[in-house]
Amino acid sequence: MSLPWISDLRAEFPLDQLSIEAEVLTKHSHDSSTHPAHLPEVVVWPLNTNDVVKVVRLADKYAVPVTPCGTRTGLEGNALPVNGGIVLDMTRMNKVVEVRAADFQVVVEPGIIGTELNKQLAVHHLMFPAFPASAHIATIGGMIANNAGGMYAVKYGVVGNWVLALESVLADGSIVHLGSHSIKSVAGYDLKNLMIGSEGTLGIITKATLKLVPLVTSKYLVAASFPDVKKALDATLAILHSQADPAAVEMLDAATIKYVNAFKHSNWEELPTILIELHGTPEDLPQRGKKIQSVCQTQGSTSVKSADTTEEIEAIWEVRTAAYPAIVAAHPDSGILPGDIGVPLSQIPAFMAYVAQIAQENQVSVPTFGHIGDGNFHFWLVYRQDNPSEVNRAKSLAAKLVAKALELGGTCTAEHGVGIGKQAYLAHEHADSLQLMKQLKQVLDPKGILNPGKIFATLDA
Amino acid sequence: MSLPWISDLRAEFPLDQLSIEAEVLTKHSHDSSTHPAHLPEVVVWPLNTNDVVKVVRLADKYAVPVTPCGTRTGLEGNALPVNGGIVLDMTRMNKVVEVRAADFQVVVEPGIIGTELNKQLAVHHLMFPAFPASAHIATIGGMIANNAGGMYAVKYGVVGNWVLALESVLADGSIVHLGSHSIKSVAGYDLKNLMIGSEGTLGIITKATLKLVPLVTSKYLVAASFPDVKKALDATLAILHSQADPAAVEMLDAATIKYVNAFKHSNWEELPTILIELHGTPEDLPQRGKKIQSVCQTQGSTSVKSADTTEEIEAIWEVRTAAYPAIVAAHPDSGILPGDIGVPLSQIPAFMAYVAQIAQENQVSVPTFGHIGDGNFHFWLVYRQDNPSEVNRAKSLAAKLVAKALELGGTCTAEHGVGIGKQAYLAHEHADSLQLMKQLKQVLDPKGILNPGKIFATLDA
Repeated sequence: MSLPWISDLRAEFPLDQLSIEAEVLTKHSHDSSTHPAHLPEVVVWPLNTNDVVKVVRLADKYAVPVTPCGTRTGLEGNALPVNGGIVLDMTRMNKVVEVRAADFQVVVEPGIIGTELNKQLAVHHLMFPAFPASAHIATIGGMIANNAGGMYAVKYGVVGNWVLALESVLADGSIVHLGSHSIKSVAGYDLKNLMIGSEGTLGIITKATLKLVPLVTSKYLVAASFPDVKKALDATLAILHSQADPAAVEMLDAATIKYVNAFKHSNWEELPTILIELHGTPEDLPQRGKKIQSVCQTQGSTSVKSADTTEEIEAIWEVRTAAYPAIVAAHPDSGILPGDIGVPLSQIPAFMAYVAQIAQENQVSVPTFGHIGDGNFHFWLVYRQDNPSEVNRAKSLAAKLVAKALELGGTCTAEHGVGIGKQAYLAHEHADSLQLMKQLKQVLDPKGILNPGKIFATLDA
Repeated sequence: MSLPWISDLRAEFPLDQLSIEAEVLTKHSHDSSTHPAHLPEVVVWPLNTNDVVKVVRLADKYAVPVTPCGTRTGLEGNALPVNGGIVLDMTRMNKVVEVRAADFQVVVEPGIIGTELNKQLAVHHLMFPAFPASAHIATIGGMIANNAGGMYAVKYGVVGNWVLALESVLADGSIVHLGSHSIKSVAGYDLKNLMIGSEGTLGIITKATLKLVPLVTSKYLVAASFPDVKKALDATLAILHSQADPAAVEMLDAATIKYVNAFKHSNWEELPTILIELHGTPEDLPQRGKKIQSVCQTQGSTSVKSADTTEEIEAIWEVRTAAYPAIVAAHPDSGILPGDIGVPLSQIPAFMAYVAQIAQENQVSVPTFGHIGDGNFHFWLVYRQDNPSEVNRAKSLAAKLVAKALELGGTCTAEHGVGIGKQAYLAHEHADSLQLMKQLKQVLDPKGILNPGKIFATLDA
């Protein structure tokens, strides 16, 4: 026996675009976070904007939740159907609609994977420069819906900065076109940026026009270890103050390096380490790279490495890409609560000192690494899932660390989004505008059908 | 005899913070556009956020319009009190509140003039990189309220891209803090970007935190003329495709150069001319500059100049800075209707061909120049103010040119804002989301007291 709205959906979509099979529902009940799973009642795979309109109109008619998702790589439960209903799996809308090379633009459907897009753009000597580290598994739609950041935000900003225009389906099934194909436009209110980062709660992204840059073919990497975080930050600030124009400045703390060494059998100095990537030309890179090495030495680095071939660069980056897998491997059968705070650059040493204090006071390891060039750090609190006191401790320590970031003038989430996990902190961080956010949600989605339970659990004051 | 709300205002503010003098009201009745003047009933100069709150609360109580303004350099009537009421002159709130050098941030009041801010930042070897050409006379508050662009948007983006956080007073007198001092933040809906570019219709900006870059001390300039616009665009695209990383790529058309030559007694080739400015280091600039010159030659430039000293660079830039004064000087006692369209880069030749066609068909000169690097052009339609048929022709030609930009996938306003002059075009450009914009206005300003008559003349559907 089927619910009336499911019958109506079945009438609209062929069998291969809709499923109520347990296996499919289960797959769509979780993301890459440790938030509890929530089963949808049905999964629909739209093939085009009109399919999305059909689903949303039915959802509107029956007041059924619609939760859009890509590949569910989110870390805050952003795409979990917490109130059941329909999951709109956007992964079959994964085409490059139009490469507009002379405009430095590409029009894409939301389901395309980041690295796949850049593979197709490379043929045109173009690239999307602001992908997060998950670009090999994450969809562009999810990245826009969460305004993803990443390692290259130092030079290129975040995903949202590169979105020129969006086609979105609103909660009443209407289609809107936000932004412009003109690189600059101030025609009316900036609804495009309101949609970006709204986690599917204000509308469903069905098409995006992205701004591109010339393909970067020449890179240079410097890795430098420092006796303490303060010196690593001083080097970072000196690099940012120079005209060396880094594309990425990452930092791993000593605790993280320890895990990486154990995991990769490597012998990195177990000290705060920064990695600086430069983008440029074969002519200018050696000189800029040397300047960076010299800055690191002046700032007290105990060891400086550099690389300018793809192989060498990738080999060094492994210390960063292996960081999370190394932490996971060291804690089998454990849950990991991720932090995603951002603080003003000057407050990084104070935040990292607090991480160290929390770790020492609680006799736990709190590996921390991230984007020192823009003050965004991820800390990882490990707990055995069958041990309630460890679960509670992880939650309580996470709350303390986020509170510290806010106290230092920072944010509870720099790039992962609010989802389920950051709602309490959002209410604290934006106490004076939270009600306004809720009012906008009510205007755009009066029945509360779009990804309900995210960003705010309730729309009450 | 004074209206009750004016009596209430007088009771709140000392004499030197409030005026109803005819001279003051007249000064605040116009901006830098040719839109008709509108007198306010009173002008108030707030000294702090609390003063703004006081004014807005009274305006809310009596449902009186409040129009914030800076130095009224807008070109679309953005700050004209079309319904009378109170003008809130923000120019006395002009302090640098805090330079946070280690954070690459500055907190400012809205009334500070752009170049004055950069003068104060230079001491810290920092600068705000995205100022419009009017930075020597325009306030940062006005720039944010209109999301101003400018010559350096090619490299640095627009003003709004550099705003990290805003303090604003909403229509009910409440104070909100939008954005974050963290460089990246995805905590909730992006209300900061909703406020940016809303032209004072959604709230009044009382404080802004801006992101900064290291002070640029070394520049290089290339100026190149081309036989036609298509070749100038091809050179621009080749420059953008190279790794030369231009900070500005401007273009003046032949008609504009003619005015400049007459005005400055100069002898520029009367051909489409592009100016490319590079920012970098004394080590890398010569090589990057030579690459640009070589690109221009390859693309068929008839004449290439370059400069690397401040004096030489400023001397060449005069062709651009003199452009508008040259057009004005050639048409004494005339009005000038400004265009501010943006088109995708590939559509620039089509747009410029249409400008030429319009000029020829109507036997008028339509000088056009602007930011070729991001497809944003200003055209100038001159008319004798005492000649109704010339006034009507200017309006009709402007409408045709904007319609062409929209037809080419562009925007009716890339950086001047909607104000009064672009409302009809906005309704066309964003037909499918205009109603949503109006709904948001109604949520944020239910009594319609904040800068009424701008962006939309009416909130009706």
